[in-house]
Amino acid sequence: MKLDRDRAIELVRASLKQERYEHTLRVTDTALELAASYGADQKKTELAAILHDYAKYRDKDEMRRWINTESRLPKDLLDYHHELWHGPVGAVLLHKEAGLEDGEVASAIACHTTGKANMNTLEKVIFLADYIEPGRKFPGVEEVRKTAEEDLDKACLQAAQNTIFFLMSKGQKVYPDTLHNYNDLLQLIKQK
Amino acid sequence: MKLDRDRAIELVRASLKQERYEHTLRVTDTALELAASYGADQKKTELAAILHDYAKYRDKDEMRRWINTESRLPKDLLDYHHELWHGPVGAVLLHKEAGLEDGEVASAIACHTTGKANMNTLEKVIFLADYIEPGRKFPGVEEVRKTAEEDLDKACLQAAQNTIFFLMSKGQKVYPDTLHNYNDLLQLIKQK
Repeated sequence: MKLDRDRAIELVRASLKQERYEHTLRVTDTALELAASYGADQKKTELAAILHDYAKYRDKDEMRRWINTESRLPKDLLDYHHELWHGPVGAVLLHKEAGLEDGEVASAIACHTTGKANMNTLEKVIFLADYIEPGRKFPGVEEVRKTAEEDLDKACLQAAQNTIFFLMSKGQKVYPDTLHNYNDLLQLIKQK
Repeated sequence: MKLDRDRAIELVRASLKQERYEHTLRVTDTALELAASYGADQKKTELAAILHDYAKYRDKDEMRRWINTESRLPKDLLDYHHELWHGPVGAVLLHKEAGLEDGEVASAIACHTTGKANMNTLEKVIFLADYIEPGRKFPGVEEVRKTAEEDLDKACLQAAQNTIFFLMSKGQKVYPDTLHNYNDLLQLIKQK
């Protein structure tokens, strides 16, 4: 079965709780607006946004097994909070279970929680939409929403910065890709 | 000529400004106290502390050349603030110019500014002594001094955390080893 918009909706309706499904629809709307503003492919954006939380409710042990056995998944994820696992694991499972073939869509799903260095526009759009969708109440999110109307990179940088501050203030570890995202965007913006 | 305490003092008196030389003496006193409390080798601690800023006043272009050409030096340093270069470059130059043969001393000098994952006691002592010596006025340093009387790892963690907050609040990049140091110490302390 072709993995188009309708099939993607069907898949996530079946695998997400109602609340998380509604978050997914808001991320999709936000991502499509960002894609229109910053020139990401609409079809890829829609598919990545609908599917970004596909593995959100997978059992932790199942996700751990995938990380241990699937060569595409970085093993160091296991040293960090399990909240970071559903993106990379979701991208792999969508390939195995739902026939996702588009590597750009898979990559945007994989890095949506942490970001990473050298994100392309689609990856930035999904990362940012997940952070600023209208249901989010993080401290500082309103400022990021405003920045998102003017500068995609600056908005992603603010989101990364807020996340690092938040994790450190809670005494939690920070996944290296989150720092690489911050460092990379900072350099990019300084060079503009 | 043997690289002992007296030769090391001679070397840094010749290569450091008076103010930095005085900082070096304070770092040495602080490091020797920490080494006595936490069980690091006194001779190695003294040598590493005296020599830690050996390359502090080397010309930026000279340091850049060393990083570009010396295989032991990580190339990604060049993407970060030149303030981070004198530790790793100093360790290499001390070997080449002054016959430093002790790899543990060299390593403590190399990582004194950033820290790194899995530091040994000597590396922690030099990293922390440089942060808390009595001349330092960083915000939060007094708290780190107090913690240093009780727990070497917790004090290093606080120093790493303060440094990351400081750099981010100034809109500066954070060298990955600084984050690795933070993540690693956090995990170590949670497992105690």
